[in-house]
Parts: sequence; C-alpha cells; structure tokens
Amino acid sequence: MINRIPSMELAARVSDGNLRAIARLITRVEGGDAEVRSALAEIYKCTGRAHVVGITGVPGAGKSTLVTQLVHEFRASGRKVGVIAIDPSSPFSGGSILGDRIRMGELVSDPGVFIRSMATRGTLGGLARPALDAVDLLDAGGFDVILIETVGVGQDEVDIVRAAHTTVVVNAPGLGDDIQAIKAGVLEIADVHVVSKADRPDANKTIQELKGMLMMSLEPGESVWRVPVVPTSSEKHSGFDELMVAIDRHRKHLEQTDEIRERRRQIALTRVLKVSEGIVRDNFVRDSRSRTEDLLNKVTHREIDPYGAAVELLKNMKERIHDEY
Amino acid sequence: MINRIPSMELAARVSDGNLRAIARLITRVEGGDAEVRSALAEIYKCTGRAHVVGITGVPGAGKSTLVTQLVHEFRASGRKVGVIAIDPSSPFSGGSILGDRIRMGELVSDPGVFIRSMATRGTLGGLARPALDAVDLLDAGGFDVILIETVGVGQDEVDIVRAAHTTVVVNAPGLGDDIQAIKAGVLEIADVHVVSKADRPDANKTIQELKGMLMMSLEPGESVWRVPVVPTSSEKHSGFDELMVAIDRHRKHLEQTDEIRERRRQIALTRVLKVSEGIVRDNFVRDSRSRTEDLLNKVTHREIDPYGAAVELLKNMKERIHDEY
Repeated sequence: MINRIPSMELAARVSDGNLRAIARLITRVEGGDAEVRSALAEIYKCTGRAHVVGITGVPGAGKSTLVTQLVHEFRASGRKVGVIAIDPSSPFSGGSILGDRIRMGELVSDPGVFIRSMATRGTLGGLARPALDAVDLLDAGGFDVILIETVGVGQDEVDIVRAAHTTVVVNAPGLGDDIQAIKAGVLEIADVHVVSKADRPDANKTIQELKGMLMMSLEPGESVWRVPVVPTSSEKHSGFDELMVAIDRHRKHLEQTDEIRERRRQIALTRVLKVSEGIVRDNFVRDSRSRTEDLLNKVTHREIDPYGAAVELLKNMKERIHDEY
Repeated sequence: MINRIPSMELAARVSDGNLRAIARLITRVEGGDAEVRSALAEIYKCTGRAHVVGITGVPGAGKSTLVTQLVHEFRASGRKVGVIAIDPSSPFSGGSILGDRIRMGELVSDPGVFIRSMATRGTLGGLARPALDAVDLLDAGGFDVILIETVGVGQDEVDIVRAAHTTVVVNAPGLGDDIQAIKAGVLEIADVHVVSKADRPDANKTIQELKGMLMMSLEPGESVWRVPVVPTSSEKHSGFDELMVAIDRHRKHLEQTDEIRERRRQIALTRVLKVSEGIVRDNFVRDSRSRTEDLLNKVTHREIDPYGAAVELLKNMKERIHDEY
C-alpha cells in the first residue's frame, strides 16, 4: 500500500473517537495483520468503559430489526452506540430485508453510531477474536454501548456472548414451534429474554412457555437476577424502550451485586483462550509447509492419531513462541 | 467406579462391533476422560472405512426427520448406519417432535443402527473433538455410513462438517423467506442440497432460488462435481432414496477424481487443530490456579492485553507438554 498509516498512529486517532481510524483498524484485524498487534495492546489499555451487549438468537428471530430499533433507543438516551454484526443473516452482513436497510440508512449518517459487519465465512479459527478486538476499538473510541449481534448457535457464538456484560436472547413466536433459545442451547446464557413479533397472535404462548422454563431453571444460590421476558414488536414499534431499560437494569445489577467482577473474569478467560487458539492455528498453518504436510499425511495414513499429531504440533510451536513473542 | 473396564479392553470389543463398548467409550470421551486417550489412538488405526456424512442446516429445517428417513434408506441398502446428533434441536438430543421419536423407536431396536446424541451445552472447547472421536469409534466398529447431524451455524459446526466426506445442507421452504444455507453461511460447503417439506406450495420457489445461486457460485477450475438439489418430503415419503443415491454418487466422485485425498487432508487438518485447541484450553483451566487467576486479573485490570496473556499461557504450557506427553 502507498504511504500506509502505521496502526500505532491510527490507534492514537481511535482514542480521539476517529471513526475512520476505527474502521481501518478493524479491517486490518480482519486481515490478520500482525502489524496491528502492538496497536491493539495500546488500545486495550483504554478499554473497560463500554457496556457490551450480546444479542443472539436463531436466524429468523428478528435480531437485526431489533438491533436497529435498540440503536435508536440508546441514541435517544444520548449514548453513542457501536454495532458489530456477525450474524450471516444480518442485513448489516448482506442477507437483508429491505426495511432494515432503510432504517439503517438514517443510522449510518449519525456520527454517534458505528455499524460494522464482520464476514463469517472462511475465517480460520472463527470470529470471536477479531470481533472482540473490534469491540475494544469501539470501547476505546468512546462508544457507551456496543451491541454484538450473533446467531446463538455454535461454540464460537457462545464464546462471543460470554465476552459480553449483558446477553439478550431473541425468540420469535412460531419459528419451528419451539423456543429457539432451547434449539440454540442458549436458554441459560440469557440475562434478558426477548419475544419479538409480539403483535402476532401466537406470541403470548411463547412468552408464557419462556417464563415457565425460566421458573424451572431458577436454581437456589444462583444470582438473584430474575431474567425478564420483554415482548417487542417492530410492527407496533413497541417494547424497545422497555428492552433498553432491562439492559441498563442488568448492568446496574452487575455493579451493585459485584457480579461484574466474575463477569469480567469470564470475559478475560474467554478472550485469552480465543487468542491462544488463534495462535495455535496460525502457527500450524504457518509451520514449515513440509513439516505440516508430513504430519497430516501420517494422520490420514493412520500412522499417528490426531491427538499425537496435536502434541507434536504444540511442541514444534514452542521454539517459535520463544523466538517471536 | 467398581471394577471399571479399562478403555483399552473396551476398544478391543469395539473392533468386534460391540455397541455397548462403543457407547461406553463415547461417554468417557464426553467426560474428557484422560484414560481413554490411548484407547482412541488404538481405535484410530482401525478407522478410514466408513463414509462420514455431515447433515447441517438451521433449526426448523427438518434435519432430524430427514436423518431418520436416511437411516431407513441406508439400512434398506444393507448398510450399518451410525448417527451422531449434535443439533440441540434434534429429537435425538431431546428437543423433539413426537413423530420422530416414534420413527426412531424402530431404529433403536435395530442392531445395525447406532444413534447417539451429544450434549452441546457447557462443553468447554466445543463439540467437534468428542464428536469426531465418536465417529472414529463407529468407524472402527464397522459402521458403513456415519451421519453427523449438526446445526450449520458457528465455527464449531463448520469444523465438524469439514471433517465429513460428504456434506448435506438441508433447506426448508419459507423459513424466514430466505435460503437458510445463506443465513447459516454454509451455501458453499454443501456437496448435496436438500429442500425438505417439498410437498409445500412454496417449495419450488426455494428449489429454483437454490439452483440459481449454485449456478452463480460455480467457479471455473473448481471441482467438476455439480451440487444436486434434492427435494424431500416426509409427508409424501419421497426423495429420501434419491438423497441416498446423491450421497453415494458424491463418494464415488471423490474416489474417481482423487478429490478424496484433498478431502482427507482437510479432515486431518481440522481434527489436529481441534485437538490442539482442546489441549490449550485444558492446560489453561488445569494450570496452577493462582497462575491462571493472576493472568486473568492482569487482563481485567488492563495490565496485559489478551494477546500478551495468551502468549504467557502458551509458554507456561510448553514445559507441561514435554513432561506429560
């Protein structure tokens, strides 16, 4: 690239809330750019202020419309809002409903809003690491609330949600006649439950089923936080203010009960593990080609089992870790 | 446990096709049992015969019904069939439609069928590793075809599918008025596309859209395999024989074009990476508590960034790797 601005210099602009600098660094993060690493380390020192909210739920639950509405609510409350969309079905990522695109339109022109979608396909090692680096950039950039939209199915998605302060699980009435939170296995990670499309006749059934399950899943000795079920309707434009209030209440709850400390520990654990996995993958892929191929050949020919090969790989990695880092 | 049979001994019974031995070893694998490791290494030597088929698609697409029907087809063709269900919405994993349970009923009593669901929740490091170990056990146990049913969203799910010889992506008409393969970001990993619930009036639209997209996504120089779109209907009991034929044809294609070699390399790569990630997670969690907590504390207090902490973690791990393995 011709006179490419060093990531360190961009990082300095991020702290001034420079949106273009944030966007460019996210692009470098997505590209697995090694040069951006030291910049991220600097950025990380300036993080910890934002309220990170994970929005999850199976495709078709209406997450994207909900996210758009939530952004409007938070903006109306005078806060800067960042959105990281890593849901392949999100209009932010392309697979879109026109209505959302239009609603988004207004948002894009608002300097208090930053919306970024991150590609899901072909990302070796998953999306958690770049997505959470992007969250850091928005946090350091002075965004008060950061919404991460993700499909709530799969280890990577669950890990991303584990890196949020507040997790909102979106359910829609009907969808396969089953609570999607169960389908996606994310019932118990919800801090706030939403039943979208609440204008639909079958919405109440879903709300009641959900409340019933939450009662059952309540275990003594656990957090005193009672997970609310918030009905929303983009048709009737209702419920989104209540949702924002519920999210803010949860943040307050964390701080007042000191649960925030455990939450922060969980976030740190998730992030360190995700980065570690990334380093392992990178090293293996970057490993002297012949050596990697030799190992894979042995595995395909049953001369070594995957576990033995993995141990070999991790041993090989040792030297490099000491040299490089 | 009182007089617990050593995993090595169970492994010997697996090669004799002992279903109870397979079931018990899978349970030990799920439990993260270290003692089972050497047994798995032995088992692995006896694998490579089975045709591993990944069945994926968003919740509600009708994967479970389809899997049940496919099992009947493969059985009718005289083959032994194993099923590993890691879709939280699968009836095999509980979240069930009665009809499936009943159809399953017959299957459970058939010694040529082995059905096992694997829990998705709270599995640190995801399901790919235990699921693929289970596939090895069925492979070594003499099962000709092994179906892995998984929700096609999320890195872990994609990785599991990467470890299959043939990937079937299930789409249902309607579901959110969008091709679910796109929503799930798995359009291009499909070797065979299914449009389930083909008896529905809107099925043809989905079939045509899908065929259109497959035409577009066809790149020159790529595999000559033309991805078929197979309509199925459990209502009309139609399409499942065609689906089996398509799956068999794909296996033949891999072998005749020698693509099987690249596919096997991909499978080996995925497995070794998954195991490596697992070892990293285990080590970190098992790491001398104070050391881990100290590291996490530094991360939460912004004294070190996740990347720096991960490098520390991996360095710590190195010694242990040399001691233990």
